[in-house]
Order: sequence, then structure tokens, then C-alpha cells
Amino acid sequence: MKTLGEIAKYVDGKLQGDPAVVIKRIVHPALVRGPGDLALVLSANVLGLLKQNQVTSVIAPAELTSIDVPNYILVSRPRLALARLLELFERPVYSAEGIHPSAVIDPSAKIGEKVSVGPHCWVGPNSIIGTGTRLICNVSVGADVEIGEKALLHPGVSVGDRCKVGNRVIIQPGACIGGDGFSFVTPQPGNVEAARQKKQIVENTDSNMEIVRINSIGHVVIEDDVEIGAGTCIDRATLGETKIGRGTKIDNLVQIGHNVTIGRNCLIVAQVGMGGSAKVGERVVIGGQAGLPDHMSVGDDAVVGPQAGVSGNVAARQSVIGSPAVPVRDFIQQNMNFKRLSRLNQRVKELEAKLAELEKRLGS
Amino acid sequence: MKTLGEIAKYVDGKLQGDPAVVIKRIVHPALVRGPGDLALVLSANVLGLLKQNQVTSVIAPAELTSIDVPNYILVSRPRLALARLLELFERPVYSAEGIHPSAVIDPSAKIGEKVSVGPHCWVGPNSIIGTGTRLICNVSVGADVEIGEKALLHPGVSVGDRCKVGNRVIIQPGACIGGDGFSFVTPQPGNVEAARQKKQIVENTDSNMEIVRINSIGHVVIEDDVEIGAGTCIDRATLGETKIGRGTKIDNLVQIGHNVTIGRNCLIVAQVGMGGSAKVGERVVIGGQAGLPDHMSVGDDAVVGPQAGVSGNVAARQSVIGSPAVPVRDFIQQNMNFKRLSRLNQRVKELEAKLAELEKRLGS
Amino acid sequence: MKTLGEIAKYVDGKLQGDPAVVIKRIVHPALVRGPGDLALVLSANVLGLLKQNQVTSVIAPAELTSIDVPNYILVSRPRLALARLLELFERPVYSAEGIHPSAVIDPSAKIGEKVSVGPHCWVGPNSIIGTGTRLICNVSVGADVEIGEKALLHPGVSVGDRCKVGNRVIIQPGACIGGDGFSFVTPQPGNVEAARQKKQIVENTDSNMEIVRINSIGHVVIEDDVEIGAGTCIDRATLGETKIGRGTKIDNLVQIGHNVTIGRNCLIVAQVGMGGSAKVGERVVIGGQAGLPDHMSVGDDAVVGPQAGVSGNVAARQSVIGSPAVPVRDFIQQNMNFKRLSRLNQRVKELEAKLAELEKRLGS
Repeated sequence: MKTLGEIAKYVDGKLQGDPAVVIKRIVHPALVRGPGDLALVLSANVLGLLKQNQVTSVIAPAELTSIDVPNYILVSRPRLALARLLELFERPVYSAEGIHPSAVIDPSAKIGEKVSVGPHCWVGPNSIIGTGTRLICNVSVGADVEIGEKALLHPGVSVGDRCKVGNRVIIQPGACIGGDGFSFVTPQPGNVEAARQKKQIVENTDSNMEIVRINSIGHVVIEDDVEIGAGTCIDRATLGETKIGRGTKIDNLVQIGHNVTIGRNCLIVAQVGMGGSAKVGERVVIGGQAGLPDHMSVGDDAVVGPQAGVSGNVAARQSVIGSPAVPVRDFIQQNMNFKRLSRLNQRVKELEAKLAELEKRLGS
Repeated sequence: MKTLGEIAKYVDGKLQGDPAVVIKRIVHPALVRGPGDLALVLSANVLGLLKQNQVTSVIAPAELTSIDVPNYILVSRPRLALARLLELFERPVYSAEGIHPSAVIDPSAKIGEKVSVGPHCWVGPNSIIGTGTRLICNVSVGADVEIGEKALLHPGVSVGDRCKVGNRVIIQPGACIGGDGFSFVTPQPGNVEAARQKKQIVENTDSNMEIVRINSIGHVVIEDDVEIGAGTCIDRATLGETKIGRGTKIDNLVQIGHNVTIGRNCLIVAQVGMGGSAKVGERVVIGGQAGLPDHMSVGDDAVVGPQAGVSGNVAARQSVIGSPAVPVRDFIQQNMNFKRLSRLNQRVKELEAKLAELEKRLGS
Repeated sequence: MKTLGEIAKYVDGKLQGDPAVVIKRIVHPALVRGPGDLALVLSANVLGLLKQNQVTSVIAPAELTSIDVPNYILVSRPRLALARLLELFERPVYSAEGIHPSAVIDPSAKIGEKVSVGPHCWVGPNSIIGTGTRLICNVSVGADVEIGEKALLHPGVSVGDRCKVGNRVIIQPGACIGGDGFSFVTPQPGNVEAARQKKQIVENTDSNMEIVRINSIGHVVIEDDVEIGAGTCIDRATLGETKIGRGTKIDNLVQIGHNVTIGRNCLIVAQVGMGGSAKVGERVVIGGQAGLPDHMSVGDDAVVGPQAGVSGNVAARQSVIGSPAVPVRDFIQQNMNFKRLSRLNQRVKELEAKLAELEKRLGS
């Protein structure tokens, strides 16, 4: 519960109207039910709803200059203002206080102050949980794990042996940090290897050829302020570490292979897949369902479009899309060409007819 | 254990043969082991197996008219009959009776009659679990959650604070209802935003620019009779609600972003991804691995093909496929054109040769 | 801790140098910190690091013949040697000894010798856990399940009623074996069915048409030596069984539909999706994010490329890619044609101009 005056100050906005109005909820203009509701206007499209719903207080982009309601706050970056507003009106995740009696904590683990370990969590030997960190429920932390301060691990998260999770990291439900890498080899070269080398398929006379597992003896390092989505899997390294850089945000159901390195402040959208040893720079954006094969690299500030199938290294600041992925400009040209293909077929047919006609006339 | 007569009546089929025969199992014709087995024939392809396996009782599509076994039931819609049959022969999921002693239930939660809460489940403060609902094992229900009657939550499901789950909803193992939305903003426009606006990539002089989180203070509403697949993630809304309409069925490993609205009786196949605020109508079918970006809408009765990458709104009753998605007819034409391309290249080459020949002859 | 002599023997390599040197760690050449580190050289690219990091012991491919360090082991297949080396230096997953007091085991379950059942696991009625098998934590095993010997089930794995898991199977965190199949039918043919049959969309006058569930009364069989990735979902069969053949390795977040059959020694990379009743042969490799629709088959030794959208059966030993998937050779040709399209447009334009010029000259 805040006043309009307090809110305007907090979001760095310009208030027109009564600063003493008390706001209880932030809502879409369609859901306003009374004077305690502040309507969030992100675009002019919803202005029509204001009168209809007897809206009295609005927060809106500065471009709208004047709004026909008693009180409004104008802001220059509405989504940033929204982020600030939702800090004010945050509804914190419920967590049990202290260590729940059903939690199992190895005696050798070190649990910091103000830590919450909820029902049915497990913390293995020699693991360290930093001050103020919360494990909601059914969280599993293996042996020799280090988790920083003020981290939040939602229900069903698992963090495998020896992994390191930084400060203020948020891990959504069911994410898996430190599964084994998908790494195998056959005693003799098989069709697997042939496919990788883009050679022909080899017939294995020994059809029962064993697939030998390459154990993962490395771990995962998640730096400070990273967020990891629900169901996302980050595999441990074969040797060394799989690393997610500070401030990077990863969405749900993303697959990160063994030995991948992701730089700082990247955005990785849902269902992206990265093969082993892929290397992603800083401030990279990867769209939903895109795929990055083993060992590929993506440079700083690059943008990989949704569903892209990267098939070569992506240079810094490059923007690619398509499967196989090409620069966005080429992709647009390619699609334009596709659309003109029927017409092109037609033009060639006409050319053939005219030429035949000419040749006939000339008695060739 | 039912008689053929009872079965024929239950599936609304026409029985030829002995109605008193007792059936113990329904099986594929290849797996029949005795007279207690009813062979399920979905197409004529498997008729050859009947004699070979000494099959005595069969259920088959009405088109087959006469089948050379002692007893058979003919039905007009075999898959519907199969659905009815499997209601008769259902093998219910095992669940512990009542509240298991290892379950942790907040004293303020309201647990209805005949509810089963299995081992290591947790129900948070003020949550409500309706009559006859079952939580198998390791299920986590946060604070202020409402779950309806006769729902079934499989192992490892998590339902976050304030979410609402309707009657008879089935949630498969490990699904996550109410993770936080993937919503972020930078203080200054970054290459993230530039990419979204399809403008050029902006170089951030401040390469450590913080990514600000937009908290999700909304929740998820799952209406009655919805089914949600294993590992599927449905994010909570930023404000308001993410909503799955009555009777909609969602397969495994599907990603549903914050503030998405899905109408009634849709089928969403495995590994589909939907960005924030996408809007799906009623009776929509979305094929496996298809992607729907932020804010896109799909009209009633539309069909989105597998692996489609929707890049604009899909009208009601439209059927699209491809990435970027186009109407199915165009996609087929496009693929035909692709296949003719080598030939088209050849034709143009021939035209060039002939024209050069003509020009030479004419001394141009 | 092993000597170079022991290691050389174990990996079947040829040692130059001192067999008595004691090795404590295997590391990337860039991470060598002392004489106890054995640097793993997989290619000549990293040879420059050896002097720089004062590397004293190296394992390298036989092609490199001579290396400028005191001790080196040459091997013919470096990745195989790596696999062997990591057996030597394996860091076993931490697991609680015996049955943890917080685990819940039904009195009718049969638990073999040397079994470890970790915190908050559940084993249902009549289930059998074989000798030496380990359930790390939060694992859920339903009723009538059979798990073989020396299997390893990581945190949060669920195995549903009646499923069978073989010997030495490894299941990574959060994988779900035996969720219900995604199988539904409407009382009257709906647009769902129409879409499947590639006919036109049917308008359902009854917009509230119920979707009838087809129960899954079958189960899942995982044969010996299979590995299943984190978050992967394998649905139970409608009737009969969904089956994963001996030695097959499945990566993270893979979707395997009901009644799928996969042969022996396949490699299925992350985020692959397979629809109901798909059939995969032996030694098949399926690249990341590829999709296989219902009822399709892939023959022995076939290779399906990453992100491929299979749209017809794939023959044995065939290699396909693209969406819709085509033989690799055609795909390469197709992409070459795409790249030449702008040029082709230009050539046709020139032909038209020249022909018009000719026609003009000839006064047609």
C-alpha cells in the first residue's frame, strides 16, 4: 500500500493529480474495480477502457502527455517503471521459517544465518548454504555444493555434487543443475562418428558394439544474479566447469550441455538447446527453441532468432535466424525469393515459349 | 473382467458371437495368449495375425463387416470405442490412502473429504484441496492455492502460491504451475530491445548494464477437466492471470509463458512453446515443437502444424505450417517449388545458351 | 591417484617418459598447475599451451608422434582413452548408505542387498529394487515396478506403476518414466482429426464437444545399460509397452510418446520429440531438437539431423535433415539453390530484357 506520491517518486515519474491517493493494487485497465487500483497503461490501445471502468489513477508512457483521469503518472520507460512498481508491490514467495523438521541436512553441511530450508529438502555432506538463502521444498543439494547468499531455490530443484551457485541466484521449480554430460564414444568408429564428420554411414559389422560412457568429473558454476527457468537442465563439465556468467537470465526448459560457457547479462529464451562446449559471449540474446550445436561460438551482443539452427560461429553483434541460420537480412531476402518462386517459374515458362516462337520464325 | 456382451453394450458396438465370453485383457492382436484376450484391430493391416495367434475375440471398425473369428464386435469409431474400453479396463494410479504421515500440511490449509496426500507432499498455508483430489508423492502446493475436486497430481508436481486448479484436472509428473514469467528490462534500451524492435544492434557502452527483473505478481488459472503433461511449465502472470480453458489437453514439456490465455478444448502437443501474452482460441490444435511468439494470437479452430514458427496472428479456422509459418497450401506449393529449383536452374541455363546462339546468328 | 605407467596400460597407450610419475588430476592444458596434472590434448591446436603452462605430462593422439614434454602417452582413439581415463578418475555420485530413515518404503516392496534409498524417496507396493541400485533423493517409484541391479536414479526421478527398468540403467534428475500417453478422441470427427487426415477444417457446431481421454493401461520397459537424461519424459503405452532398447543413450528434455519402440545402442540428443507409436531401429542417431511424428519409423543405422522434421519413414542407413526432412545430399543442394536464387532472378530478368530487345529488332 503506497500513495501515488510515493509511487511517482519511486518510478521517477511525473504526477498529475492528488499525491495522497492510496494505491492497493496495480492492474490492467480492464480489471479496475475501485479507487485503490492503479491502471497500468503500456500503450494508447487501452485508453478507451479508462472511462468505461471509471478508472481514477493511471500510470502511462510520457508520449501520451495528457490523460482524461483525475490522477496520472507519466514515465519515460513504462516497462522499467513496471519493474520498479512490481518491486514495490512484490508478493514474496511463501517459505517456511528456518529449517523445517522434515528437511534432512548432513551434519557436515554449513548452513548460514537466516537460511530457510523447507519441507523434504536435502543438503548433502560438506555443502555450504549462504546467509539468507531459501530452499522452498523438495530441493536436493548434493555433496560439496556451494550456494551463495540470498539465493532462492524453488520446489524440486536439484543441484548436483560440487556445483557452485552464486549470490541472489533464482532457480525456478524443477531445474536441474549438474546432471551428467551427454558424452559417449564407441571402441571403433561407428555411424555416430561418421555422421559427425559428415562422412558416409559406416556399417558396423558388430551390431552389438558397446557405447562407452565418458564420465563427467567436472561441475557447474552459476555466477551471481543469474536466473534459471523451470525445468531447465545445465549439465556438469567432463573436466573443468560449465559456466553461466553473472546476470544472465535463462528461461524454462532450456538445455545447456556439458562445458558450455555463457557470458554475462545474456537472455536465453525458453526451450533453447546448446550442445557441449558451446561458447556464448556477453549480452547475447537467443530466441525460443533455437539450437546451438557442440563447440559453436556466439560473439558478444549477437542475437540468435527464435527456432534458429546455428550451423557456424556467429560473430559479435551479428543477428542470425533460420535453420540453417543466416544473417537476418539474407533470411528476409530468402523468404522474399521463396514467395516469388511461383512467379519466377511462370516467367521462365513464358521465356521458353517466346524463344521457341522466335526460333520457329527464324527457321532455326 | 467383463463379458463380450457387456463390452459391446458399453462401446455401443454390434456383437457377432457369444455374449457370455469373459474378457480379462485388451491387447494388440500380436499379443493374444488365450480366450480371455480381446484383440483390438484398428485397421485391416493386422487381420493376418488373427489366425496365426488363434485369436477368438476381436473388436474392429465397422468397415471390416465380417471377420473370421468366433466372436467380434464392430464399432463405428474404433478410437472412441478404445477410449470407452479403457475406461472399463482402467488401471487406477496407486495412491496412499488419506494423509500420509510424512506429508507436511500447514495447519491453516483446508483439506476436503476423501483426499489422498501421499509421501513427502507439502501443502502451504491457506491452501484448499477439494474432495477426492489425490496428490501422489513429492507434490508441492504453495500458499493460498485452490485445487478443485477429484484432481490428480502426479509425483513431483509443483503448484505455486495463489494458483487455481479446477475439478478433475490431471497433472502429470514434474509439471510446474506458476513459475515466474521471463520478463526483464534494461535501464537504457539495449540490444535486447533493439532485436525485438527489429532495429539495428546497439552497442552498449556500459557493458555491465544491469538487467532489471519484472516480478510476476499474478497467478495461473487451470479450468476444469484440463490435462497437463509431464515436465510442462506454465508461468504465472505479471499482473492478472495465465489461463488454460476448460477441457484443454497439454502434452509433455510444453512451455506456456506469462499471461498466455488458451481457450477451451484445445490440443497442445509436446514441446510446443508459447511466449508471454500469446492468445489461443477454442478447439485449436498445435503440433509438436511449434513456437508461438509473444503477443501472437491464434483464432478458434485453427491448426498450427508441428515445428511451425508462427510469425503473425493466425486467423480462425486457418491451418499453418513452416518456419516462418504460412498457410498449408502455400507450404506445399513452396516445397514443390524447392524441388523444382535444380530443374529451373537448368532451364534458365538452356535459355541463356539458346538466346546467345540466336543473338550470334543475328549478329547482334 | 595413479602412476603414468598404470594409466598408459589402462588406456592401451604408448608411454614415453617416466612411468613412476604420480597423476592426481586430468585437466585441460590451460589448467595445469603442477606435476600431478596430466594434460589432455585432443588436437594439435592446444600444443602451444604446453610450454606456457610448464606441462610435464600429456596424453595425446598418436598422430602427434612426438611432443616436447618430459612424459607423454600416445593413444589411437583419444576420446576412447578419455572415457577410460575418466573411469579411473571417476568421482562417484554421493549417496546415503542403506535406507534413509526419511524414505518411505511399502512393506510389500522387495529391496535387494546393498541398495541405497536416499532421503524422501518413496517405493510403492510390490515394487522390486535390485541389488546395488541407488535412489539418491526425492525419487518416486510407484506400485508393481521392477528396477534391476546397479541402477542409479538421480534426485526427483519418477517411475510410474508397473514400469520395468533394467540393470545398470542411469536416470538423470527429474526424468519421468511412465507418464500417461497423450491420446484423446472426440465423439464426432472434429478439426483435430481433420487436421491429422490433412483434410479441410470442420466446423464443429457443438463448440463444447467433449474431448474423451484414452487411458494408458500399458507400461514402459527400459532395457539394460540405457541412460536417460534430465527432465526427459517417456510415456507409458496405451496397451502393451513403450520400449527403450539395451544400451541406448537418451539426452535431456527428450519427449518419447506412448508405444514408441527404440532399438539398441541408439543416441538420442537433447530436446528430440517422438510422437506415439514411432519406431526407431538400432544404432540410430537423432540430432538435437529433431521431431518424429506419430507412427513414423526410422531404420537401423539411420541418422536424423538436428532440428529435422521427419515427415515420412526413414530407411535404414539413410541420413536426413531439414523440416520437412530430406536426404542430406538433397538438403545441401536445396540450400545451394536457395543461395543462388537472387542471382537466378537476375538472370531471368536479363533474359527477358534481351529477348524483348531481340523481338523488337525483329519487329515481332
